[in-house]
Amino acid sequence: MKINDYSGSREAYLRACRVIPSGIYGHQGPAEGCYTPIEAWPMFSSRAKGSYFWDVDGNRMIDYMCGYGPNILGYHDPDVDEAARKQREIADCVTVPTTKMIDFAELLVDTVACADWAFFAKNGNDVTTLAIMTARAYTHRKKIVFFKGYYHGISPWTQKIDYAGVIEEDVMHNLYVDWNDYDALAELFDRYKGEIAAVISQPYMHGNFQDNVLPAEGFWQKVRKLCTDNETVLIVDDVRAGWRIDLAGSDHYFGFEADLICFCKALANGYNVSALCGKEFLRSSVSSMSYTGSYWMSSVPFAAGIACIEKMKKLNLPAILNEKGKTLGDGLIAAGQKYGFDLHVTGMPSLFYLRLADDPSLMLHQEWIAECVKRGVFFTTHHNHFINYALSDEDIAETIAVADEAFSVIRERHPL
Amino acid sequence: MKINDYSGSREAYLRACRVIPSGIYGHQGPAEGCYTPIEAWPMFSSRAKGSYFWDVDGNRMIDYMCGYGPNILGYHDPDVDEAARKQREIADCVTVPTTKMIDFAELLVDTVACADWAFFAKNGNDVTTLAIMTARAYTHRKKIVFFKGYYHGISPWTQKIDYAGVIEEDVMHNLYVDWNDYDALAELFDRYKGEIAAVISQPYMHGNFQDNVLPAEGFWQKVRKLCTDNETVLIVDDVRAGWRIDLAGSDHYFGFEADLICFCKALANGYNVSALCGKEFLRSSVSSMSYTGSYWMSSVPFAAGIACIEKMKKLNLPAILNEKGKTLGDGLIAAGQKYGFDLHVTGMPSLFYLRLADDPSLMLHQEWIAECVKRGVFFTTHHNHFINYALSDEDIAETIAVADEAFSVIRERHPL
Repeated sequence: MKINDYSGSREAYLRACRVIPSGIYGHQGPAEGCYTPIEAWPMFSSRAKGSYFWDVDGNRMIDYMCGYGPNILGYHDPDVDEAARKQREIADCVTVPTTKMIDFAELLVDTVACADWAFFAKNGNDVTTLAIMTARAYTHRKKIVFFKGYYHGISPWTQKIDYAGVIEEDVMHNLYVDWNDYDALAELFDRYKGEIAAVISQPYMHGNFQDNVLPAEGFWQKVRKLCTDNETVLIVDDVRAGWRIDLAGSDHYFGFEADLICFCKALANGYNVSALCGKEFLRSSVSSMSYTGSYWMSSVPFAAGIACIEKMKKLNLPAILNEKGKTLGDGLIAAGQKYGFDLHVTGMPSLFYLRLADDPSLMLHQEWIAECVKRGVFFTTHHNHFINYALSDEDIAETIAVADEAFSVIRERHPL
Repeated sequence: MKINDYSGSREAYLRACRVIPSGIYGHQGPAEGCYTPIEAWPMFSSRAKGSYFWDVDGNRMIDYMCGYGPNILGYHDPDVDEAARKQREIADCVTVPTTKMIDFAELLVDTVACADWAFFAKNGNDVTTLAIMTARAYTHRKKIVFFKGYYHGISPWTQKIDYAGVIEEDVMHNLYVDWNDYDALAELFDRYKGEIAAVISQPYMHGNFQDNVLPAEGFWQKVRKLCTDNETVLIVDDVRAGWRIDLAGSDHYFGFEADLICFCKALANGYNVSALCGKEFLRSSVSSMSYTGSYWMSSVPFAAGIACIEKMKKLNLPAILNEKGKTLGDGLIAAGQKYGFDLHVTGMPSLFYLRLADDPSLMLHQEWIAECVKRGVFFTTHHNHFINYALSDEDIAETIAVADEAFSVIRERHPL
């Protein structure tokens, strides 16, 4: 198989480093991002279509990161792009919003099980922050419970005390428990009786550097009851998993109802919008807040979001994505077994997480991922992946063939 | 003159209130927004073009809010829209960025006087928050100085203790001084020697509910020296004023250099992007931070931003906008004088603030603004306004004619 050359990416990255701190910042960058050996990694894209992007060196990548989530229907989905184009001709970022905002809110209230209302912003972080502020405003309490391994954005309140730029006051009311450990959670509620404003959680543990873990049987139902009994606001952060598990919300899939649910990423197939949805009893708390932004009522992302959700509903998309993910995961595991590797595929298939369990240091895993990436399959090392609707059976077959060759290469390098 | 009917807006607003907390939230909404009597106010737009938007009732508004800033070249500027359209055909929100990100950063570093690098995000609030975190990371200090009347976004750290959802720990290291009061600032630096991480400020006081106030002679130079002497990071929040005063940054216009400068709004004529620019010595602090978002490397807003800045530079736009604003302001003052009114027009002409000084309660002012709005001139009551390039001499003449009739109406209602 062809091994990608990335000289154009390398050159662009050096240019980027001169004018952008760390060249490419955040999870997209080589520093923090994906811990893939830099020589295996395309760093700049030139175009994207369907399930692929092409890098600046002309390498075509089968893309399992989907822009880190937003691409759910395929890059340049014709229905979403057409709705956005039509709206752009009329009005986007105007002094007063268009009624597309209302249409979008009505659609979310119709679609999302726990939603009595919807509030729009731009980042996932905007709506996780609004959820926390809403919980504090409603309860007049300060403490927030997080599940270890969480990610809820980049605001100081959700970062760690040892992170640059974060001060102790930002996180001093944060409490942490292990995922699926109901007893520990109940103990926290006892210890801080009447002080816990919110529990914030992803629908299941899809953290980095660890096998993803679904909720234990009955876990969510007990958490829901504990929150209700203590008048604590239960926040589901569905920014990453949303729309790939259940169109009515991932809480709905796991058989409970959140008080507040946060959406972003796949909400509009890459158009820039996020949403907080929630229950009636929190409406006036949200209304009491001073919370907005310059672009928050732009109409193009609303039009795109409407088209995206309508198409997802018509397709019953999560079932399709989970089926694609299952086929892929099974194929990858079987390819590993051929060479004596123990590949773990965890989480929901539409959001699968990969870990080669043969080496606890994860270095062997990184080697394998690197060999896949160099052959045109864009995996990351320690982050969950994303399936999109444009991913074809041929893409999946090609991916498994690439993975097979990558396994053979590292088996040769590390003989049994 | 025709008096606008807003029955369609009213109806849409009632629909909105069912599915969106407070119907229209934030500054765009009737509750918080502009304190204009609701019956004078169009609440939903149907389309926009150049210096106008049309509301859902078909009323054409000469728009002096410009989407609260973003619209600087006119709605649907052909050059910006064409650059965005071409980029959208290729790639927008992809797993790895395109080199448009580098091009945009290079252009900002070339254009903005104090910029050695650029970092992109989505909201103004994203970059003001990053600026604060950077200052704290660099200085290992906690305290931040604000000038009373400031607005730096919606994160808890920049809100007030009595605001819903804000806890005391969010703001306990905030210090406040009066604008232009250098002695008070110097006293704070004495009192909190070695504890002040940053001073954050708009380039001049363009707060709400007050006449806007330019910097006193030498004020910025003394502040700059005080910050340098105390190794405190000087942050200019140019989110609102940026690109309407000086394309090299509003700090450049006022004869000093910020350490960090925040841009958003007019940066890309309404396409969704913000930027933090700064000096070399802060680059590694920014690089050390975990700070990103799903849409932050989308290429369409970068392409739009490049086209917008290049056009603004070619036009030397701030001079044009200030001239338009000056003509308008002079005309409005003269119209007021005809009827014995004392209209104050303050701030930079490209960002003019209006106040009818005859009534300290501001109720008369609100009446006058309402009469203007009902006649198709979109002013707000207690927020600065924005000039855009598409605003024509005819628009300005029509605005003055409307203002004249509005003055006559309120003079009749409140005889001398």
